[in-house]
Amino acid sequence: MAESLRVGIAGLGTVGASVVRVLTEKAAELTRQCGRTITVTAVSARDRNKDRGVDLSTVSWFENPVDLARSNEIDVFIELIGGDEGAARESVKAALEAGRHVVTANKALLAKHGVALAEIAEKKGVLLNYEAAVAGGIPVIKTMREAMAGNSVTRVFGILNGTCNYILTRMEAEGLTFEECLKDAQRLGYAEADPTFDIEGNDTAHKLAILTSLAFGNKIAADDIYLEGISNISQADIRAAAELGYRIKLLGVAQRTESGIEQRVHPTMVPTASVIAQVHGVTNAVAIETDILGELLLSGPGAGGNATASAVVGDLADIAKSRPGFQHGPVFGRPAKELKTYKKAQMRSHAGGYFIRLTVHDRVGVFAAVAKRMADNDISLESIVQHAVGPEAAEKKTVILVTHETTEAAVRKAVEGITKDGHLTDKPQVIRIERAG
Amino acid sequence: MAESLRVGIAGLGTVGASVVRVLTEKAAELTRQCGRTITVTAVSARDRNKDRGVDLSTVSWFENPVDLARSNEIDVFIELIGGDEGAARESVKAALEAGRHVVTANKALLAKHGVALAEIAEKKGVLLNYEAAVAGGIPVIKTMREAMAGNSVTRVFGILNGTCNYILTRMEAEGLTFEECLKDAQRLGYAEADPTFDIEGNDTAHKLAILTSLAFGNKIAADDIYLEGISNISQADIRAAAELGYRIKLLGVAQRTESGIEQRVHPTMVPTASVIAQVHGVTNAVAIETDILGELLLSGPGAGGNATASAVVGDLADIAKSRPGFQHGPVFGRPAKELKTYKKAQMRSHAGGYFIRLTVHDRVGVFAAVAKRMADNDISLESIVQHAVGPEAAEKKTVILVTHETTEAAVRKAVEGITKDGHLTDKPQVIRIERAG
Repeated sequence: MAESLRVGIAGLGTVGASVVRVLTEKAAELTRQCGRTITVTAVSARDRNKDRGVDLSTVSWFENPVDLARSNEIDVFIELIGGDEGAARESVKAALEAGRHVVTANKALLAKHGVALAEIAEKKGVLLNYEAAVAGGIPVIKTMREAMAGNSVTRVFGILNGTCNYILTRMEAEGLTFEECLKDAQRLGYAEADPTFDIEGNDTAHKLAILTSLAFGNKIAADDIYLEGISNISQADIRAAAELGYRIKLLGVAQRTESGIEQRVHPTMVPTASVIAQVHGVTNAVAIETDILGELLLSGPGAGGNATASAVVGDLADIAKSRPGFQHGPVFGRPAKELKTYKKAQMRSHAGGYFIRLTVHDRVGVFAAVAKRMADNDISLESIVQHAVGPEAAEKKTVILVTHETTEAAVRKAVEGITKDGHLTDKPQVIRIERAG
Repeated sequence: MAESLRVGIAGLGTVGASVVRVLTEKAAELTRQCGRTITVTAVSARDRNKDRGVDLSTVSWFENPVDLARSNEIDVFIELIGGDEGAARESVKAALEAGRHVVTANKALLAKHGVALAEIAEKKGVLLNYEAAVAGGIPVIKTMREAMAGNSVTRVFGILNGTCNYILTRMEAEGLTFEECLKDAQRLGYAEADPTFDIEGNDTAHKLAILTSLAFGNKIAADDIYLEGISNISQADIRAAAELGYRIKLLGVAQRTESGIEQRVHPTMVPTASVIAQVHGVTNAVAIETDILGELLLSGPGAGGNATASAVVGDLADIAKSRPGFQHGPVFGRPAKELKTYKKAQMRSHAGGYFIRLTVHDRVGVFAAVAKRMADNDISLESIVQHAVGPEAAEKKTVILVTHETTEAAVRKAVEGITKDGHLTDKPQVIRIERAG
């Protein structure tokens, strides 16, 4: 049998402890699958005395993860520190430069420095694996990087943030407000004390940027993503969506268009009967559309210690099965040096259907004025629903419009016009509709 | 750059022609991804003069696929001949023995001889890749063989036959009979002239047997699968399912139980709100449940020239990225020599919920008799629905029972008892219910 694969782990939180536990408990099976043993030989974590429920008595401890990364005691460096700078970045860079394979779950690091790190990995002929960084336990990186060779991707989209999906699922199922659901998510540990990063879409954007690069062969461009979170989604939107045969999900969408690549994160109406609409709670899902294969959908747990550990161990097993002299495929599917400059499609040119919810004064001529603004901007309507807002506001009416395919620019202009006309009593709500099978 | 990977293709039907086309049209992109070119150098097919829409003027032609398999002109042999014996088996065996990598889409061959072929591949240190053999373009082999390292699978189930799913989808959507939908499927090329192999579940069983081996590390046992097709599913079942919140799918299910491994293919009730229930038409889907990751679901095109070619090209790209000296992971996840003997769980011990549809004489005491037979066999009922069969049969009634978890043995005994009681006017219908998220 080949020599044992020696692993160093930096960061021993929930995921790190899960990785150690899986490697211990499943040692015999992993050896059978990989043809060699996998041994944790060294770790680096803040508190040496904390009880993590796993036996670390025989491994070397490093105060500094960068020293661990460069140590001759390891073949693979697992980075579970987090953050896009500091110790995470320095240790991953040091490990790659020292010729160690790297496994990381750090989406923020990859979204910011992924291409530069990939260049080092490819120069050194080592693997940089990051399955856990996007959609947790779902093998979307492996699928896009390996299984889809020869396919040209046209669109990739998904539910990439469990916190948002949990909140939207409960809002729909139980009729609760956004704030109530957020509080519960925080209580259950699904959301941070400061939830901004999740609910405003930044986390989704990091993951989307990595998928976009794999899909289209461009340099990762996480700062250039259109971003809209879910904090202004109301029960009125959820109920109107249901009535029209839609469900609201926070999607990350990357799509090739004539004017460049669209990357956008926003609340989205998907048909209730679509597969992705059935993805509930903290579950994630990714749909990939290509010219040859057609549409593929993967769904599963997007976060949590075990699901993330599963992806890390899968990455490790791939490294264990490889041997010196093996020429690895490129980190982001194509050689990092050949990744193209990201050409951003302007959001104004986005083409698609729109859901527009207007709260208007209940008076003569409002409907005609709204219809005229739509017609003036060449927006054709699929459906119009009008409701009384409720007994407490008899003087208000809700008008819900669903458009056929039009452009973002046209919708913005129409809604601006309607606002100027002075018929609105509340801020208008605009939610994009996404095709989904 | 490394030397070109030389490919020989045996069988130039729809899939073979698609593979050649993808390799030609996507040559530049594949070279970028794999770090070397992939060249079709030789083929073997019956009719040399047939127009396949691809340029084969520069490749060598072999009359006999076994000669192609042994030829020094190729590094990889792609088997697209079909059939579990004869040319397919001989040529794959010859290729592996000659030290060639093999890619095949042949589920029947693998279901019957997969383990023996894997032993040769592992002895010779070459790859035997077969992503296209199960669920077409869905990367379920890659996922189970690579991404799930360290996971212990508890259950794998899926919609593995597009023909059956097409028929069931149309029966539900349009209220047509099984026969009407089958005829349309044949007209559209989704079903063979003799559809037995698809509609009676044999095709699903072949695919399931491969997944079972990957899931549980047992030798492939395709002949030992409980088999029930969809030809006796009626509109009465479909309507009753919908009323009770279920949809009927032909599933292949492999599950670890206390008494062994269950492998079964049968029409199954899945909750209408589950993800797998939204998988319509010829689309396939596979759900995998494990101890660490939890539940993963993959859905996508399960057949067709392009989807199958996508899987073949993905397998080829994996080979192209590998280099001499690389130690490959085992063909079925664990070394073929170490695969365990399949220990079959008896179908009688299967535990689960059941849907039972009885057509009974409309007379006093029938209901009580049915209820007594259930109670006598310790079957507790989740719901009972009673209908008039229709105006044309006022003397008949339909009784639909949904049981809580019970055993196959208990249900069979209860239904036998009810049949003996003499209240039934028609054959009883029993459909198993499967948990699905």
